[in-house]
Amino acid sequence: MLKDCLSKVREVAPLVHNITNYVTVNDVANIILASGASPIMADSYEEVEEITSLCGGLNINMGTLNKDTITAMLRAGKKANEIGRPVLLDPVGVGASKLRTDTALLFVKKIQFSCIRGNISEMKSLAQGYGNTKGVDADSADAITKDNIMDSVAFAKEMANRFHCVIAITGAIDLVADKDTCYVIKNGRKEMSRITGTGCQLSGLITAYLASNKGNELEAVAAAVCAMGYAGEVGYSHLQDFEGNSSYRNHIIDAVYKMTGEELQKGAKFEIL
Amino acid sequence: MLKDCLSKVREVAPLVHNITNYVTVNDVANIILASGASPIMADSYEEVEEITSLCGGLNINMGTLNKDTITAMLRAGKKANEIGRPVLLDPVGVGASKLRTDTALLFVKKIQFSCIRGNISEMKSLAQGYGNTKGVDADSADAITKDNIMDSVAFAKEMANRFHCVIAITGAIDLVADKDTCYVIKNGRKEMSRITGTGCQLSGLITAYLASNKGNELEAVAAAVCAMGYAGEVGYSHLQDFEGNSSYRNHIIDAVYKMTGEELQKGAKFEIL
Amino acid sequence: MLKDCLSKVREVAPLVHNITNYVTVNDVANIILASGASPIMADSYEEVEEITSLCGGLNINMGTLNKDTITAMLRAGKKANEIGRPVLLDPVGVGASKLRTDTALLFVKKIQFSCIRGNISEMKSLAQGYGNTKGVDADSADAITKDNIMDSVAFAKEMANRFHCVIAITGAIDLVADKDTCYVIKNGRKEMSRITGTGCQLSGLITAYLASNKGNELEAVAAAVCAMGYAGEVGYSHLQDFEGNSSYRNHIIDAVYKMTGEELQKGAKFEIL
Repeated sequence: MLKDCLSKVREVAPLVHNITNYVTVNDVANIILASGASPIMADSYEEVEEITSLCGGLNINMGTLNKDTITAMLRAGKKANEIGRPVLLDPVGVGASKLRTDTALLFVKKIQFSCIRGNISEMKSLAQGYGNTKGVDADSADAITKDNIMDSVAFAKEMANRFHCVIAITGAIDLVADKDTCYVIKNGRKEMSRITGTGCQLSGLITAYLASNKGNELEAVAAAVCAMGYAGEVGYSHLQDFEGNSSYRNHIIDAVYKMTGEELQKGAKFEIL
Repeated sequence: MLKDCLSKVREVAPLVHNITNYVTVNDVANIILASGASPIMADSYEEVEEITSLCGGLNINMGTLNKDTITAMLRAGKKANEIGRPVLLDPVGVGASKLRTDTALLFVKKIQFSCIRGNISEMKSLAQGYGNTKGVDADSADAITKDNIMDSVAFAKEMANRFHCVIAITGAIDLVADKDTCYVIKNGRKEMSRITGTGCQLSGLITAYLASNKGNELEAVAAAVCAMGYAGEVGYSHLQDFEGNSSYRNHIIDAVYKMTGEELQKGAKFEIL
Repeated sequence: MLKDCLSKVREVAPLVHNITNYVTVNDVANIILASGASPIMADSYEEVEEITSLCGGLNINMGTLNKDTITAMLRAGKKANEIGRPVLLDPVGVGASKLRTDTALLFVKKIQFSCIRGNISEMKSLAQGYGNTKGVDADSADAITKDNIMDSVAFAKEMANRFHCVIAITGAIDLVADKDTCYVIKNGRKEMSRITGTGCQLSGLITAYLASNKGNELEAVAAAVCAMGYAGEVGYSHLQDFEGNSSYRNHIIDAVYKMTGEELQKGAKFEIL
């Protein structure tokens, strides 16, 4: 049950190691704290193996890459694999530059991820090994809609099979799939895309859920995706007339902080295909 | 009309490439989203040319410099020039260190900017090629006041002529000038200076306006400066008794998100000299 | 009197140089502004000595280290010592990795600090020259409680004697000590630990207080610690039912912004041992 996945995060209170971009890092830390887990951000390649060893999970986010952080991400990822900790990849902007595409392809070759989360354009770029991602947002031509949903589900399962991990493709409709099963999730609001870093935040949140729900990866990721989307709905309901995207950001993290397992269970809108 | 400049941002929805400091980067991203544009932050010199090529404008902010980001800024700036995209320079702290002064001077030599935006101390340091800027805030001795306004306007026009671009000098009174015309803008509130990064946010906002209003640069910059100042007034009106600078930051970004062209047109306070 | 320490910050309005992590840097800047001081963040080793020379105090925070920032921290620290400006060390995560432990030990050898602030696990690791800090949070086994308070006070005084500076050990109970005297402070709320960077923010705040209260270091640090804890109480009182850690962060910084000397004097809860 989704609610048990949430409760586990509060119970286990895992430490989550994040090697992530400097744009949205503060919100990522606060949403992890809101979930009941604790974040640590450390990206020096000299220390990442030690830090990963202290942690219950590792979140690798490619938002702002450089040579040193790539080395750090590789070392941390391998260490996490070695000691059996879940690793998530957020291939931000893969397809938008050769550096990002090459790095993502290197990562999926060298690290066994537990989950890869991105928007549909990023995921297509990753699956194809190249791409024409428009920055960090999905290309509208790629959008998952009612009309192409069955193809999209098949694509997600195929990717899950190929990368041996849970695939989370997020957008207006979210897909969370392993090779056999796909959650089609309809929580969230379109206004969330006007806040920087909701995707990065979700990746941090998923890692906290994975670190707390070993052996139940697919449901854990689905629970985190539902929790984020539902927090977007709850947060939106608290917006005052004059409030926009900056306050909305706070309301969403607050909603994750306040959410009970029962509320998540009730609020989650998904079907399983 | 200023309102048309605002509408254009929502219509064009340009992608804005920011190479900016890690202090205020999140707020810069959120204010660009609030305006209707989309931000991408990428500062690896290996990829900036590709990223700039995807974007409608480039925002170079010198807040936290290092050798690698200087290289990235130069490459991105040249690429933007090559493909005809507007480039803004925010010479944060120029005059406060040799590194910043040398870098800003190198940039104005190598890159043709569409707009340079800074406080009066930074702009004097840049014009003189040296300076004694007091950190990132303007020296009070430099302040633009009613008494020295004509000299300040002349200085702004002169700088615009020399650097072949729009000059925006922001403070209690804002000046936006090309070589012939100067907007003297009196929107905003002094409390905005107690929030970190309102200047950086404005630079991001201006770049979004420039990217959406080709051929109408002077008015576009003036519209963005009025929008930021007016958002400061609107945001202030929503502050509760117990709220201070951290909530004020959110209210300002929210006000940019909510602002209509008509409100901007009505709220803008400026004369043209 | 604590209230005089607060008033001095507003009067002197010092510029505070921060070399700090990219996770919480924005909140650090905003809380320094809230106190009445002004922040400047600059971490290029080419420029830090010039920047430190412009400033009234230096805040060194080890949250996200790399080789270049370590060099920058050392240069800035030595310059501050040379020109008689207070320097604070926040040894974030010391004991969690060899890099952090080695760096902190190097710093205390090469730089004379005015204050070292950390949680109890970090301070034990620093005192022992090694440690098993659990990430960036204190290990619960180390917690200062009513039962071990006298030992903890003795430890704080001993550290102060050994490092020739004020020691601030913060947690549920805060200790601020020089070799002879220890403030035992009971302001604050446990929910503050669910916000990222309250410790980093406090370190920035203390540096602002030190820069404004030369010759009165112990009381200045105690005043800053009381101000932060009391802001945590005031901020909490303004939380609405649906608000969580993200809004709480804003309320706390807002409370620092609004706090008068009289309110601090009345709200501070401490005894001197």
